[in-house]
Amino acid sequence: MRTYAELTTLGYVEKDGKYLMLHRTKKENDINKDKYIGIGGHVEDRESPEECMMREAKEEAGISLHNLRLRGILTFLIDDLYELSFLYTANDFEGEITECDEGDLVWVKKEEVGKLSLWEGDHIFLHLLNTREDVFSLKLTYVQDVLKEVALDGEVLEDWHVWER
Amino acid sequence: MRTYAELTTLGYVEKDGKYLMLHRTKKENDINKDKYIGIGGHVEDRESPEECMMREAKEEAGISLHNLRLRGILTFLIDDLYELSFLYTANDFEGEITECDEGDLVWVKKEEVGKLSLWEGDHIFLHLLNTREDVFSLKLTYVQDVLKEVALDGEVLEDWHVWER
Repeated sequence: MRTYAELTTLGYVEKDGKYLMLHRTKKENDINKDKYIGIGGHVEDRESPEECMMREAKEEAGISLHNLRLRGILTFLIDDLYELSFLYTANDFEGEITECDEGDLVWVKKEEVGKLSLWEGDHIFLHLLNTREDVFSLKLTYVQDVLKEVALDGEVLEDWHVWER
Repeated sequence: MRTYAELTTLGYVEKDGKYLMLHRTKKENDINKDKYIGIGGHVEDRESPEECMMREAKEEAGISLHNLRLRGILTFLIDDLYELSFLYTANDFEGEITECDEGDLVWVKKEEVGKLSLWEGDHIFLHLLNTREDVFSLKLTYVQDVLKEVALDGEVLEDWHVWER
């Protein structure tokens, strides 16, 4: 029996040392309710990952991304959820940031992002965005919203708590 | 209505200037029938892409891969098929190559791989494996086995025929 992963993109747009963060306040039954995350969403039929990321940036924030760069592959196991996400950064864009119907878009200094309400594992990949130049693969296993296991490039990490604030 | 992509891995194992190629001769109703491809297969439930690649190398060739490296994201549209594939190389492994029940495993000099019966688009990503150090994203649109459109990192290519033999 073949099983299928949820396929998504997640993008961190950079400008003047800040990330564009989406404070997810508006959507009903949102697994990310009240948390701050990057922009992005589900891959639609027959899209490549970068096509999805470009479309979501346009839909959610009204912008066209430039210098899009794949930075990581995220495997999320959250109870029964199985999701593979393509993690991007972009350090340039065109257009004016618009209202988003999933939450509030805010610019947050990179060094202050860790103080926001984030998923535990987000601290880890945000750290990796600051320290890795190559494309990493991070597997995050949660029970509800508690992070239980972390594997980086196929190796289970024992000391991932040090990466969290 | 959410749609789901087939999720696969595809790996080219290197040794002494050769790639380990799988000549797909044995499987019934194989879309790859009689073609030469790398090893790999479908991502199983709750696997990360690299876990899938390691498992498939073990199952198909009896080997444990070392120095596994993500090289590209492939989006295949072949008539109604929509498949996302994680493209890997590995330049070291442990174990003896075993019989594979999907075809014959053969070592082929890299410069002679292009003379084999390949999917048209495989010439393109094999070229990119030789020329790109970063992780690329290649979208290949086929009608039956004729390649109709090629997009690299989000840009449609006009001159991809020069990359084929």
